[in-house]
Amino acid sequence: MIRVNGERHWNRMMRMAKIGATPKGGVCRVALTDEDKEGRDLFISWCKAAGCTIEIDQMGNIFARRSGTDETIPPVMIGSHLDSQPTGGKYDGVYGVLAGLEVIETLNDHDIQTKAPIELVSWTNEEGARFAPAMIASGVFAGEFSLEYAYARTDKSGKTLGEELQRIGYKGKRPVGNRPYSATFEIHIEQGPILEAAQKSVGIVTGVQGIRWYDLILTGKETHAGPSPMSFRKDPVKAALPIISQLYDLADKHSPDARVTIGFLDAAPGVKNTVPGKLTVSVDLRHPDENILTTMDKAFKSIVETTLEGSVVDGEIIDIWYSPPVAFAPKCIQAVRNAVNKLEVPAMEMVSGAGHDAVYVSKVAPTSMIFIPCEDGLSHNELEKAEKHDLINGANVLLHAVIELAHESV
Amino acid sequence: MIRVNGERHWNRMMRMAKIGATPKGGVCRVALTDEDKEGRDLFISWCKAAGCTIEIDQMGNIFARRSGTDETIPPVMIGSHLDSQPTGGKYDGVYGVLAGLEVIETLNDHDIQTKAPIELVSWTNEEGARFAPAMIASGVFAGEFSLEYAYARTDKSGKTLGEELQRIGYKGKRPVGNRPYSATFEIHIEQGPILEAAQKSVGIVTGVQGIRWYDLILTGKETHAGPSPMSFRKDPVKAALPIISQLYDLADKHSPDARVTIGFLDAAPGVKNTVPGKLTVSVDLRHPDENILTTMDKAFKSIVETTLEGSVVDGEIIDIWYSPPVAFAPKCIQAVRNAVNKLEVPAMEMVSGAGHDAVYVSKVAPTSMIFIPCEDGLSHNELEKAEKHDLINGANVLLHAVIELAHESV
Repeated sequence: MIRVNGERHWNRMMRMAKIGATPKGGVCRVALTDEDKEGRDLFISWCKAAGCTIEIDQMGNIFARRSGTDETIPPVMIGSHLDSQPTGGKYDGVYGVLAGLEVIETLNDHDIQTKAPIELVSWTNEEGARFAPAMIASGVFAGEFSLEYAYARTDKSGKTLGEELQRIGYKGKRPVGNRPYSATFEIHIEQGPILEAAQKSVGIVTGVQGIRWYDLILTGKETHAGPSPMSFRKDPVKAALPIISQLYDLADKHSPDARVTIGFLDAAPGVKNTVPGKLTVSVDLRHPDENILTTMDKAFKSIVETTLEGSVVDGEIIDIWYSPPVAFAPKCIQAVRNAVNKLEVPAMEMVSGAGHDAVYVSKVAPTSMIFIPCEDGLSHNELEKAEKHDLINGANVLLHAVIELAHESV
Repeated sequence: MIRVNGERHWNRMMRMAKIGATPKGGVCRVALTDEDKEGRDLFISWCKAAGCTIEIDQMGNIFARRSGTDETIPPVMIGSHLDSQPTGGKYDGVYGVLAGLEVIETLNDHDIQTKAPIELVSWTNEEGARFAPAMIASGVFAGEFSLEYAYARTDKSGKTLGEELQRIGYKGKRPVGNRPYSATFEIHIEQGPILEAAQKSVGIVTGVQGIRWYDLILTGKETHAGPSPMSFRKDPVKAALPIISQLYDLADKHSPDARVTIGFLDAAPGVKNTVPGKLTVSVDLRHPDENILTTMDKAFKSIVETTLEGSVVDGEIIDIWYSPPVAFAPKCIQAVRNAVNKLEVPAMEMVSGAGHDAVYVSKVAPTSMIFIPCEDGLSHNELEKAEKHDLINGANVLLHAVIELAHESV
C-alpha cells in the first residue's frame, strides 16, 4: 500500500513556516501581505516542480492541476489556505495545502495516473484577519458573495482587497467558480480537544455545526445599591441567572453535540454600587443537526418568555446570525472512512465546530473534511502544535480518499 | 406649636437652584467652582441677615452661628452641603443647609433663645465629583484625613483642592474640627424609594449601613465555542451562576435590611464565540448591623469555597473596601422621634444606604439624620424632585429636634 513521504511533507511544512515566522514559534502570514506573496510564490514553485499547471483566478485563488487520464471528468479538489492569523500557528490552513501537494508528489513517485484530474487549491484570505468576512474567496467561488463585494473589502488602513491582490500580482484571469468537481477534500487541524482526548489520529468529519447567535437584553431599573431594598429592585442580573442556568441544561439535554456559550456579558452602567439597569448577554447555540438546533432555538425563546413571565425585568432576544448546519457528502465521507480502515489509523467520526473553506465549497461540490489533533485544542495561536505522525497519518488518509474518488487507474 | 415659614424656605431653595441651573431643571454647582463660590456668598448673605456670625475654617467649611443663652454649652450643629454633582438636582445637600437656615429664622421670628448656641454648617466638597474622596471636609473635621492630604487632592485638570479653595476665597483661618458639639443633625432627601413607597413624609434615620466590597474572580480556560464540547470546558460563567444565586439567597435570609448588589460583570475576552477564560464579578454586601454583615461576609466566602470544591474553575475573592455600619446617637434619634410625634408627621424609622457628612461627624459628636422622600428614589440626577410639603415637614421636625437638644428656654 502506498504512503506519503513523511519527511518530505514535514520539511515543506517547516520551510513554509519560515515565511512570516514569529519569535514565539508561530507565523504571521496575513492575507495579501508581502509574506503571503512569498508563501504563494514558494508554493507555486513546488507545484510546478511537481509537474502541475498553475492557474490563478480573479480572487487570487491558486489552482495547481495534475492531469487525469480522462480530462473530461470533473477534477477531485484538495484545498485549504496559506494565509494565517497575525499571531497564528504553523499548521492552520497550510497543512491542508501542503498535504495536498504531498499527495500529488506521492502519486508522481509511484507513477500513478488517476482517471480524474486533481486540482490543489490555496484559497485567498480564509482567516479574515485582515479583510472581513473570513473565507471570502471560497465564498465567491460558491456564489455567496459577488466579486465586486470581495474586491471592495477594506483593511484597517483603508486598502481594498482588490488593490492588494493586484499589488502582490495575484489578481488572476480565470473566472471564479462555476466549474464542476467530482469531489473535494479539506484536511485541517481540529482546533479543538476531541481527537487528542480520544487519542485518535484522524477525525472523519461528517459535517459542520449549525450556529445561532443572539443578544439577550434584560432591562430592569438602575438604582443605587444602598438605598434600594431588595424587594424594590428590578435587577436584570438576578433575572438572568435562571435563564442562563436553563440554557446550560439545554446543552445537557442535547448532549454531547450541543454547545451553549455565554461569551459576553455587560451590566450597564457597570458600577459596583449600582443595581444595573440593563444586562446584555451573548448567546451562542450550536448543533450539527438542523432540527435539534431549531428545537434549541425555540427552547431558548420559551425559557426567556416563561422565566420572565410576571417578572419586573423585561427581556428581549435579538437574532444576530444563523449559519445552518452542513452535512458533508456521503461519498466523500465514505472515501475517508475507507482510507482510514485500509490504513488502520486510529480515527473517529466527528463534526467541525469551526468554519472552513470546505463549508462554502460544499455548497457547489461533494465535499468532506479530515481532521488531525492539535495539542490542547490550541489554534489561532503561535503555540499551535500538531504531531508529525498525525500530520503523516492525515496525509495518508487524504491520499487514499483522493485516489478512490479520482478512480485509481494504475 | 411653632412651625417654619414654608414659603420662605421654598423660595430660598428655588433661589439657590438658579446658581448653576441646568436646562433640564437640575443644578451644576460643583465644589470650588465659580458657581460654588456664588452659592456660598448668597448663603452667607442670608445667614448674616439672620443675625448669624460667620466663620470659615481651613477646609472652607462655613459655620454660621446663632448665639445661645449659655455660650459655654457646646453648640447644636445643623449641617449638609451646597455643592452638587455635575448633573445634580436641586435638593441633594442644599436642603439640609437651607432647612437649617430656616430653623434659625423661625427661632428669630418667634424670639426664641436656645440655651446652647446653634451652628449651621455647609461642608466643602461633599459630592466628591471634582475632588475624590467624597465628604472630604467632614472627614478632615472628624480626623479621618489630614488637612495636607485634603489640600493635595487634584481634579482632572490637575488643580488642587487647596489652590481652588484659595482661588474662590474660601480658605479660612479657623482650625478644622476639635470642637465639642452637644448634638448634630443632617436632614437630606432619602435618595431611595422607601419613604415614597411607604407614603411617609419623614424618615427617622437610626444609622447607616455597613458596606463590604469585593471582586470575585473566577478563572477557567479560554476555548473556542465550536470545537469545545461542554464536558471539556472550564467555564467561569457556568461556575458563577450558583454562587451569585446563593448570594441573592443570602440577602433574603437577612431580609429586609440586607443588600446584595452585582453591579459589574466582565467576561474575558468577551467574545461571542469564545468560552471566557476569566469572569470578574463585583459584589457589594450591605447591612446596618455589624454582626450580620460579618456573618454575610463569612457566608459569601464559604459559598464560593463550597461551590467551587472539586470544580474545574478556580475562584478568588479580593476584599476591596469595608465601611463599618454607623449607629446614630440615641439622644439625637429620640429628639427626632419626639418632634415627629409632636408634629404628627407620617414617619418611619430607617437606615441610610448612602454616605453623608453625618457619617464622619458622628465619629466626633452625637449625631443623627432626618430623611424626606424624593420622587422615584431618583438622585444625582437633574430630574431629582422632592415635594414642597415634605420639605416643610422635614424642616419642622428638624426645628423641634434642634429646640429640644438646644434646651429650649423661651
